[in-house]
Amino acid sequence: MNVVHTNIRRPDARIASELAGYGVATVHEAQGRTGLMGPQLRPVYAGARIAGPAVTVSVPPCDNWMIHVAVEQCRDGDVLVVAPTSYSDAGYFGDLLATSLLKRGVRALIIDAGVRDVRELTAMQFPVWSRAIFAQGTVKETLGSVNVPVVCGGALLHPGDLIVADDDGVCIVPRRSVPEVAKACAGREAREAKVRERLKNGELGLDIYGMREKLASRGLVYDDRPASED
Amino acid sequence: MNVVHTNIRRPDARIASELAGYGVATVHEAQGRTGLMGPQLRPVYAGARIAGPAVTVSVPPCDNWMIHVAVEQCRDGDVLVVAPTSYSDAGYFGDLLATSLLKRGVRALIIDAGVRDVRELTAMQFPVWSRAIFAQGTVKETLGSVNVPVVCGGALLHPGDLIVADDDGVCIVPRRSVPEVAKACAGREAREAKVRERLKNGELGLDIYGMREKLASRGLVYDDRPASED
Amino acid sequence: MNVVHTNIRRPDARIASELAGYGVATVHEAQGRTGLMGPQLRPVYAGARIAGPAVTVSVPPCDNWMIHVAVEQCRDGDVLVVAPTSYSDAGYFGDLLATSLLKRGVRALIIDAGVRDVRELTAMQFPVWSRAIFAQGTVKETLGSVNVPVVCGGALLHPGDLIVADDDGVCIVPRRSVPEVAKACAGREAREAKVRERLKNGELGLDIYGMREKLASRGLVYDDRPASED
Amino acid sequence: MNVVHTNIRRPDARIASELAGYGVATVHEAQGRTGLMGPQLRPVYAGARIAGPAVTVSVPPCDNWMIHVAVEQCRDGDVLVVAPTSYSDAGYFGDLLATSLLKRGVRALIIDAGVRDVRELTAMQFPVWSRAIFAQGTVKETLGSVNVPVVCGGALLHPGDLIVADDDGVCIVPRRSVPEVAKACAGREAREAKVRERLKNGELGLDIYGMREKLASRGLVYDDRPASED
Amino acid sequence: MNVVHTNIRRPDARIASELAGYGVATVHEAQGRTGLMGPQLRPVYAGARIAGPAVTVSVPPCDNWMIHVAVEQCRDGDVLVVAPTSYSDAGYFGDLLATSLLKRGVRALIIDAGVRDVRELTAMQFPVWSRAIFAQGTVKETLGSVNVPVVCGGALLHPGDLIVADDDGVCIVPRRSVPEVAKACAGREAREAKVRERLKNGELGLDIYGMREKLASRGLVYDDRPASED
Amino acid sequence: MNVVHTNIRRPDARIASELAGYGVATVHEAQGRTGLMGPQLRPVYAGARIAGPAVTVSVPPCDNWMIHVAVEQCRDGDVLVVAPTSYSDAGYFGDLLATSLLKRGVRALIIDAGVRDVRELTAMQFPVWSRAIFAQGTVKETLGSVNVPVVCGGALLHPGDLIVADDDGVCIVPRRSVPEVAKACAGREAREAKVRERLKNGELGLDIYGMREKLASRGLVYDDRPASED
Repeated sequence: MNVVHTNIRRPDARIASELAGYGVATVHEAQGRTGLMGPQLRPVYAGARIAGPAVTVSVPPCDNWMIHVAVEQCRDGDVLVVAPTSYSDAGYFGDLLATSLLKRGVRALIIDAGVRDVRELTAMQFPVWSRAIFAQGTVKETLGSVNVPVVCGGALLHPGDLIVADDDGVCIVPRRSVPEVAKACAGREAREAKVRERLKNGELGLDIYGMREKLASRGLVYDDRPASED
Repeated sequence: MNVVHTNIRRPDARIASELAGYGVATVHEAQGRTGLMGPQLRPVYAGARIAGPAVTVSVPPCDNWMIHVAVEQCRDGDVLVVAPTSYSDAGYFGDLLATSLLKRGVRALIIDAGVRDVRELTAMQFPVWSRAIFAQGTVKETLGSVNVPVVCGGALLHPGDLIVADDDGVCIVPRRSVPEVAKACAGREAREAKVRERLKNGELGLDIYGMREKLASRGLVYDDRPASED
Repeated sequence: MNVVHTNIRRPDARIASELAGYGVATVHEAQGRTGLMGPQLRPVYAGARIAGPAVTVSVPPCDNWMIHVAVEQCRDGDVLVVAPTSYSDAGYFGDLLATSLLKRGVRALIIDAGVRDVRELTAMQFPVWSRAIFAQGTVKETLGSVNVPVVCGGALLHPGDLIVADDDGVCIVPRRSVPEVAKACAGREAREAKVRERLKNGELGLDIYGMREKLASRGLVYDDRPASED
Repeated sequence: MNVVHTNIRRPDARIASELAGYGVATVHEAQGRTGLMGPQLRPVYAGARIAGPAVTVSVPPCDNWMIHVAVEQCRDGDVLVVAPTSYSDAGYFGDLLATSLLKRGVRALIIDAGVRDVRELTAMQFPVWSRAIFAQGTVKETLGSVNVPVVCGGALLHPGDLIVADDDGVCIVPRRSVPEVAKACAGREAREAKVRERLKNGELGLDIYGMREKLASRGLVYDDRPASED
Repeated sequence: MNVVHTNIRRPDARIASELAGYGVATVHEAQGRTGLMGPQLRPVYAGARIAGPAVTVSVPPCDNWMIHVAVEQCRDGDVLVVAPTSYSDAGYFGDLLATSLLKRGVRALIIDAGVRDVRELTAMQFPVWSRAIFAQGTVKETLGSVNVPVVCGGALLHPGDLIVADDDGVCIVPRRSVPEVAKACAGREAREAKVRERLKNGELGLDIYGMREKLASRGLVYDDRPASED
Repeated sequence: MNVVHTNIRRPDARIASELAGYGVATVHEAQGRTGLMGPQLRPVYAGARIAGPAVTVSVPPCDNWMIHVAVEQCRDGDVLVVAPTSYSDAGYFGDLLATSLLKRGVRALIIDAGVRDVRELTAMQFPVWSRAIFAQGTVKETLGSVNVPVVCGGALLHPGDLIVADDDGVCIVPRRSVPEVAKACAGREAREAKVRERLKNGELGLDIYGMREKLASRGLVYDDRPASED
């Protein structure tokens, strides 16, 4: 059955902004190294950093009809996430859809397929993370669903989960975990700031993290004879 | 038999320029969603938009001898298109060949293989779309042909066909279709400009394209109960 | 056995700088078309050109513990090269490790795996060539070795070999060949400079390289009848 | 948090057997073209056809410790499904683990990673669908979870969902849908049997499915002039 | 425009059988190392060797409607060749379509996409060369064309060209070249038979082909000191 | 410089046979999880298990001239290993070269490229592990070297190292390590035989390996409440 869920819960908007600031690597670590989409999802242009609740769209291969349906479900601050039900690198999305999303205040598009008009998307500064850049057109023949759970970039996503994306890729934070992950990020960032200072001063990670003893106990050997070269 | 066809027909130069302005996505749609090379062909640097008639070169794997032969067949405004007879990512092309092509007024290189000296190509602003960036050198031992039909990026191309390329990729317009495709592009662009204005004003594609009825007749259901999250 | 070789020979630092200037394509050709890592290794940001002796690290899949060990073995001017013992695209390296390497004067990182914090790496202008950009975290559980021969990007590398890297990719010069390769590069560049001038003046490679006779003797045919288009 | 859920609901065993008989293509169609894992999951040997409830294991990259934990959770008739949290083609599974699973009556292994000892697995006739065959060993250092939802082969799977697998690949039937899907399969198979008979008698799909009118209305043209060949 | 060409020329049937006997490697060499589809096209089961004229079908991604149209255009001895207009690994073809083709005397299917029901196809001994095995269903919504030139497996194919396929892959012989290629194959096979006998007797290719002098003149050095091992 | 080393050391032939019996997975583990070529190297037919010293060939892309040179360097019991200097999937090897190698008593071919005539290779029972099956012909124009160190399947190999290959892939044992690895294999196999018996009797790996305490200390939680399904 093809359905559009019009009523999803979203995480607190302020915390979303905060997580955008921490970035993908920190958020991913802070929630126990989970939630990453695969490295095949790359930004169309460098430098964007966003976060927002996901409006999800499950689409047929090479058919972008449901994206038009999903636009209406998007609110200010949302991130649209599009996942085909089987592999496609077709260009589902271009500057017209981006114009419509910008008008509604949508922060970004994440799509496990192709996009086109990337020159225009860059000029508009509408951030997109996609699997491919390809002008291949799509049809509008077959239904899909909006705001259902989807698998995107190899990761499971529910509508209303928080998307965090930057030059490192895309990370999902389950809606209910958002406050706790934000807290963990703050702690992690504080700890890293201190380490960064010490590293800048020339201290070594080996000493800061106290690794030398564990390395020795595992049997690591240092050999100061000239290394063979052949 | 290895042959160099020295006499090819080219489309009207003015229309070529016009098509460069429309861009790959529009041209591809205007000719019935045909003619695209695959998304593996990417620009070496962003921002170039070109169009011109193809001088084609069929080359052996890892052998760039015939590119030197092809240079002589290129005229002002042409696009050189190089297709190996089997897979290769070797670096067939670098700044010396680009220097020679620039001098002859060639607009761009499209190559279903690798290129090198990309820093210099970017500095010269000689646009290249390639499958790979790889310094691997080639030999000059085996003949190929110039201005024969080739398969490049998975698409069939005849010498004299028009190449249109931009950040979205590469599209082929058969020489005889150029005037008619230009006309279709103009129509398409005019229609899109109107749609763009309406989208900027907040109208939805659902309404502009009159999709709601068709969606309902196919059975799309809207559900306003809170979406399950687990 | 897991070992850290603390004593490696390095090539002369002045010649290293000279080779950075020639670039990857020239160096690769000058040493007989050998030494290239594969095209899967790409720079995180464009424009960096470096050379320096390799400190090598053999790491387990998804485990970056040994990189911390290797940092201590790096000196001013070195290039750190990280190779997993089986395929991994995890993010072994981020801005903290880069901070530590910068402090020690390390020129660049080459890694046959993933990196993260690429926005920060770009801001710091710490050059990285990697197989992937991926935030996936790693563990610190299993030993590897430092300054042993490794296979990186499909190429064999010994500690102390010279790494040359630019926008075209990464090339290895065996330590003992460095002086002779530098000489061959100088000769090659001088010859290319002359050819470049002649090409700019409109001469053809066919004539400069004297190819016409060899082409004819191999049987290349020129045909000036209008080429068939279908 | 790493957890082993020891108490999962399983679908009715008789219906599971019935679905194995229908096969992957029929089951996938009967539930609305959903539930397929990607084509990267291939059988280690041809000819096996199985179905059974999934015991799921979420494992770290290159670490098979949790498979040992999962074995204890498997019952007669189950299918073990292993999904790494990031890409790995390491050999997580070999003949010893297969011996243990066979003893417990487990029907098959589905793993989005590598396996080894495939000669022995074939001799034992223990069916495996995997992404790779690779002898690369794994470690036992990091926890994962058993009987949690996983993404395997790009598809979402809950513990207790029914796995159907044959030479065409692997399909997931959500536990609650099993009876209804079985019914739909029976209907589909009956209809196909009739069509198969008519096709054997030389009738055309065009006529059996009544396609000619729709094709004509969409504008399909038949042209009986000799087709151009060039 | 979508068109079905109902009138194509086919090569002489007797010569087709002869070429099947020579096999793909010999035919490819005999026509100057041209005509191969890429190695991504693999047989569904080992051992089939076929040849026959191509009935071509250009299909949209994930839409198999036109295959039903094409069946009607196939005659005894033909080979059906299906090429999507953009990448798809969906399962366009299964046992029902194979039943229909077998009834009409079609020799094989070549498809640059996915197939399913491979257990049944193997049992029926209907040979298929495909890019993928995947149960993913397709729709019947969008027109394509029959008996137009297509690019399949990266190679250009016209309707009526001869397809030769075996365990090594798929080769295309242009219709008009069939007699001349058959003759070249006979010559090549006779020469190879003699070489095979001499090799069986222990003669070396180096001597049979008279390579030693050319190798020496290119500078090959033999060194009988113990080879370094490190 | 291109060189043929005619004098390489080989490991003891009896130990080679013994290692073939242990198989790739055991050998790889016994030498500390090292020496594997990547999973892209697959056997042309299932069931072969071989071991023997490597005669190595470094070849240019798409040029098989040096294989003819290498045949002469092969002795009874050897394994020929062919590695291109840059990526190629061309068909370097077919039934004529196999005839010649069989006559000389060569055990197998390992090639990081393509082969052809696989039907004949299978009929002759000449075992081959390759990256691709592809009929694409090669040329004989450019020199390479025989019995030099090569990188094959991503792994470093010296001439005279022992190759072990079976359905799991290909493993390299450095020549000097052969006796010690054989001993480690014997120990490993004895231990595995005992574990296998205990697993057949229904004991669990968790208990045999004493894992329960370590799992608990790392924090693994068992939860016997009904697992959530949604």
